Amino acid sequence: MDVNFVNPFLKSLLNVLETMAQLELKPGKPGLKKDEIARGDVSGLIGMVGPQTKGSLSISFDKGLAIEIMRRMLGEAPESINEEVTDMVGEITNMVTGGAKRLLAEDGYDFDMATPVVVSGPSHTITHKTEGPKVLIPFTSIHGHATIEICFENI
Amino acid sequence: MDVNFVNPFLKSLLNVLETMAQLELKPGKPGLKKDEIARGDVSGLIGMVGPQTKGSLSISFDKGLAIEIMRRMLGEAPESINEEVTDMVGEITNMVTGGAKRLLAEDGYDFDMATPVVVSGPSHTITHKTEGPKVLIPFTSIHGHATIEICFENI
Repeated sequence: MDVNFVNPFLKSLLNVLETMAQLELKPGKPGLKKDEIARGDVSGLIGMVGPQTKGSLSISFDKGLAIEIMRRMLGEAPESINEEVTDMVGEITNMVTGGAKRLLAEDGYDFDMATPVVVSGPSHTITHKTEGPKVLIPFTSIHGHATIEICFENI
Repeated sequence: MDVNFVNPFLKSLLNVLETMAQLELKPGKPGLKKDEIARGDVSGLIGMVGPQTKGSLSISFDKGLAIEIMRRMLGEAPESINEEVTDMVGEITNMVTGGAKRLLAEDGYDFDMATPVVVSGPSHTITHKTEGPKVLIPFTSIHGHATIEICFENI
């Protein structure tokens, strides 16, 4: 999987959070996942299917960061990861993947998106079961971490 | 979503666990999900995209049940939900969805599967973010519970 495939997802998350929550995340260096495990308190997942490829994407947030995004969007912070927060994480997952899909379409890559699923639970781990490479993009902020993980087969 | 769409997933899970682990689960009554939340210690998720529909499926297992399936398959039980267990849950998720896909193709329903993702973490919850109905199928065994949740849009 080349870097041209990774950057649209990175840019798309920064763009979505800046637009929706005026929140600036600091992206770390994307890397091929080996032992590293995506871990968070609330994660959005989405499947992708294209003519030449299929894959999955996850975006995991620390609780503090998810709640700060809600506070900035609604002016009020929920005390816990409630249904409003999981709705927001599902929506962010959709918007980030949709934004990347549009950027990638310009380069001739094509895929359709399934519907998102949101997982919540303290420090859960996410493992993408694919034969293709797994790219992990870490993000930091003073409110906590976020991690995107993207996997595509045959790319 | 009609019952003809649900039964293939139910049958497919029973069949996969009987074949792979000689384990018989007792299916409960499938129901439309309202307040009920799919909860488990390890879950497999997969996205589905078809010409007329898209959706998501999850299969959640209690830790005790996941470990018992491993014991029956390998003759040895892992102490915790390790990589072997998440590999197995990813494989079961693929097999169950693939089995249901074949049954549904006979009825003219068609979809492609994304790659599976496995989540682990004690008592995590799963929320499918879709506008379509969400069907939940509970399964019981003396080793713990399993839950399938299926969501399709436009069906």
